[in-house]
Amino acid sequence: MSALIALDWGTSSLRAQLLDADGVAVETRTRPWGIMHTPAGDFATAFRTLVGDWRERWPDAPALACGMIGSRNGWREVPYVDAPADAAELAKGLLSFDSGCGDLHLVPGVMQRGELPNVLRGEETQVFGALQMCPELVERGVLVLPGTHSKWVDVCEGRLERFATYMTGELFAVLRDHSILGRPARDEGHEGAADAFQLGLRNARDAGAQGIASRLFTTRSLYLAEALPAAHTLDYLSGLLIGEELRSVVASLHDEACPPLVLIGDAALCDRYRQALAFYGITETRHLEHATRAGLWQIATAAGLVAARAS
Amino acid sequence: MSALIALDWGTSSLRAQLLDADGVAVETRTRPWGIMHTPAGDFATAFRTLVGDWRERWPDAPALACGMIGSRNGWREVPYVDAPADAAELAKGLLSFDSGCGDLHLVPGVMQRGELPNVLRGEETQVFGALQMCPELVERGVLVLPGTHSKWVDVCEGRLERFATYMTGELFAVLRDHSILGRPARDEGHEGAADAFQLGLRNARDAGAQGIASRLFTTRSLYLAEALPAAHTLDYLSGLLIGEELRSVVASLHDEACPPLVLIGDAALCDRYRQALAFYGITETRHLEHATRAGLWQIATAAGLVAARAS
Repeated sequence: MSALIALDWGTSSLRAQLLDADGVAVETRTRPWGIMHTPAGDFATAFRTLVGDWRERWPDAPALACGMIGSRNGWREVPYVDAPADAAELAKGLLSFDSGCGDLHLVPGVMQRGELPNVLRGEETQVFGALQMCPELVERGVLVLPGTHSKWVDVCEGRLERFATYMTGELFAVLRDHSILGRPARDEGHEGAADAFQLGLRNARDAGAQGIASRLFTTRSLYLAEALPAAHTLDYLSGLLIGEELRSVVASLHDEACPPLVLIGDAALCDRYRQALAFYGITETRHLEHATRAGLWQIATAAGLVAARAS
Repeated sequence: MSALIALDWGTSSLRAQLLDADGVAVETRTRPWGIMHTPAGDFATAFRTLVGDWRERWPDAPALACGMIGSRNGWREVPYVDAPADAAELAKGLLSFDSGCGDLHLVPGVMQRGELPNVLRGEETQVFGALQMCPELVERGVLVLPGTHSKWVDVCEGRLERFATYMTGELFAVLRDHSILGRPARDEGHEGAADAFQLGLRNARDAGAQGIASRLFTTRSLYLAEALPAAHTLDYLSGLLIGEELRSVVASLHDEACPPLVLIGDAALCDRYRQALAFYGITETRHLEHATRAGLWQIATAAGLVAARAS
């Protein structure tokens, strides 16, 4: 008996999972049909192609999607819910419409208003998944979601309280592909170099309040001074940029102790963040995977789309 | 009587000037033949095409060039001179060779050695030009050369003492052209917006020791929150990035007073820096143009290529 069609529909990929009445995935299908890459931009056809047979077989299973599919460039734009927000508020903000292949419900993103507004879309689902997976975070926790745009989310009493965005992944990609810093590796190739990554982390930390603005160019000058091989320049740059993210976060703590910290996402990238955190003495970290699936189940439950599990 | 053929041969353009015995330009020729754009990569032909008639007419006038033409990707690689360096040391480091159209002398760049090495090439000539134009800087001064890679150069007793590099211009260009921050202006167009630039400066300054790492994304979130029109996003981003450069420099002063400060280069860009400096109470700035020509004359004099002027 299948209970929910759960979709993670982001910028670069689309993943659909068929969940049973316990929220366990019984089947998973992944396509490279992110919203920027959906064939002919035709979301309805992509949706029907991927899950049409599930809908026929399980006509009572609702479909719930999170991610950029609910953005301005997606299928329907779902208005942001204001932070702080709990799972019930996200559930109230669902946008539901006839997909042409049954109703589809879209999870809203979250906006933090004020002079320096901030937004996230997709990560809210991972956050509520993490709270279900790690009940000890519900009272107070920090969730770190590294990626193109890293999100640092403060959780307080079950609410997504506030968050910060670091464009570390995108900065790395544009500098690697389009700046002079990426040229040696573009010309001569790249290889992983743990010591170059560590050197980047150290140089970022040692920058102190000046930040890495005056040190970014050392990615090139160390290479020109023959202190850094071309093939190691990208790992050095990665260390500098992740290091600067951590330096900035730690400066924001104002000597408060860091609350329990959970890393969510790609294992290799989370490992880089774990190494960076260790430079600041933060070694008590956990790593979670599959938070999106758990979050979609949580939000579906809060919205009454599926029956709450007896706990 | 022409005394020197002075060339500023950089990445994107080539400028040749014929200087008289007082170092005054009597003719100027500019071509878009920077080292990355020289037709067929043939520096010899470009050189002969641009100045061949001058060489025939004034066979005794030496030719001296500064800039990226002396880099690894230029005509000949001129080894860096170590900082601190004075004009005499630059003159000793000239690389001279037969260009096929008479001898050509190339000015060396400067390398600052150490754990965080740094290099410049081209700016050394502007620095010694500025010292000739502003004798009050010789004892102690700070020269700011905004651009693709901004250089902040400390001068002490006539020496180029030390310097810092900020990749502000290149960061702006890659984010504008290749990141999500540039997309609204790429889609909808750009217009100058002094208040958006000022807001970026203020948000960078107010970031304090955290730096702009967590604020870069406000270029997008302010747009999404409809607090910043698409057409103004680039001026906001420019303010954030120039503001971060200034924030970092001011953090490095450790409460020392800023020494006399001179901006060198493009007037519109220098004006942006002047506005940014004003956010930190630094309002006593001068602006210099034509420092390269003056610097080539100084170095030619120090090298004995031209006779020193009676002063």
